[in-house]
Amino acid sequence: MKIITENHIFKTKGNSDIVNLTDRLFESFENSGLINGNVTVFSVGSTASISTIEYEPGLKKDLPEILEKLIPSAKKYFHNDTWGDHNGHSHIRSTLFGCSQTIPFSGKNLLLGTWQQVVLIDFDEKPRTRRVIFQFFGE
Amino acid sequence: MKIITENHIFKTKGNSDIVNLTDRLFESFENSGLINGNVTVFSVGSTASISTIEYEPGLKKDLPEILEKLIPSAKKYFHNDTWGDHNGHSHIRSTLFGCSQTIPFSGKNLLLGTWQQVVLIDFDEKPRTRRVIFQFFGE
Amino acid sequence: MKIITENHIFKTKGNSDIVNLTDRLFESFENSGLINGNVTVFSVGSTASISTIEYEPGLKKDLPEILEKLIPSAKKYFHNDTWGDHNGHSHIRSTLFGCSQTIPFSGKNLLLGTWQQVVLIDFDEKPRTRRVIFQFFGE
Repeated sequence: MKIITENHIFKTKGNSDIVNLTDRLFESFENSGLINGNVTVFSVGSTASISTIEYEPGLKKDLPEILEKLIPSAKKYFHNDTWGDHNGHSHIRSTLFGCSQTIPFSGKNLLLGTWQQVVLIDFDEKPRTRRVIFQFFGE
Repeated sequence: MKIITENHIFKTKGNSDIVNLTDRLFESFENSGLINGNVTVFSVGSTASISTIEYEPGLKKDLPEILEKLIPSAKKYFHNDTWGDHNGHSHIRSTLFGCSQTIPFSGKNLLLGTWQQVVLIDFDEKPRTRRVIFQFFGE
Repeated sequence: MKIITENHIFKTKGNSDIVNLTDRLFESFENSGLINGNVTVFSVGSTASISTIEYEPGLKKDLPEILEKLIPSAKKYFHNDTWGDHNGHSHIRSTLFGCSQTIPFSGKNLLLGTWQQVVLIDFDEKPRTRRVIFQFFGE
């Protein structure tokens, strides 16, 4: 059984920008030489999240639009009073989507669906440089 | 330490149908012979999710009803323009709920609450045949 | 490779009370003696969830307030008819946020962000005593 923990850096545009991690994940998986096990993808920080989506231009517009209705950026947040910040909505969205997903692999295949990409969603109000952990457990 | 990766097929009705995976999960767990470790339950595809719920008829109606208000099926989605699809809402819901949950076990007991069932929620707009992965790590 | 499974008890106020698990998690991690691996934090029961948040007084008010708009406690839920309960909203919120998160560690460091705390959110309508599992996998 091997554990491989990797740091990956991604630049984002903020404002619910969706960044596709899948190519980088497949490259790391291939380099690991592992056959059976899983990989946990973890987002470091409190205003971004990890999930899966069909990564295509339509959904890249739909997700921010619907979040703007559900958890508006312009609403009054107590968080913004605490720090003089303007990203109360970013924190709430990140807590809702969560920080980690775990994806199994078997027989040297990552078990994602054909239209299922692993993504980082950056809810912060400005462009950010983000750290994402890929941690492989396997044999 | 053993890794056991299983494919399971479930038929769903779509439209936020909630399918109870718990009996199948307990059966697999018993067959594994494992005592301590965890199981990751992973949904393959981009319009379904894994979560836990008290599986009873009331909540099976409440969840679709509230999702219809939050992320309406009849709204205009850019995704639907991309493919001529009608399931933009299904994708957004799936990204929000996430694709994986990890449930620990110890002393041959799966550590779920009494009223906590593991479920697949199928957000697609039509009945589907779904693949779910149960991956056990343990000893 | 070692597996350590711990039960932890937390008292909550209910009503989307956010309880900070981070100090207890760091203490358990230090006691484990583990260097590389991950910890799965799992909430037992169907009306609470695990996530991460910047734990500060502003967000502790913002999250319950926005949930009250999205998934109102006073709405009619079929769940409440089933049992004569009043916590339909608690179940829906818990299913939405999920029951588990997995946090990697490496070189004896838990890889959380500086402002990223691991929390239990209790959506039930009254104070509860909650069981949370910390399960460490590592070496």
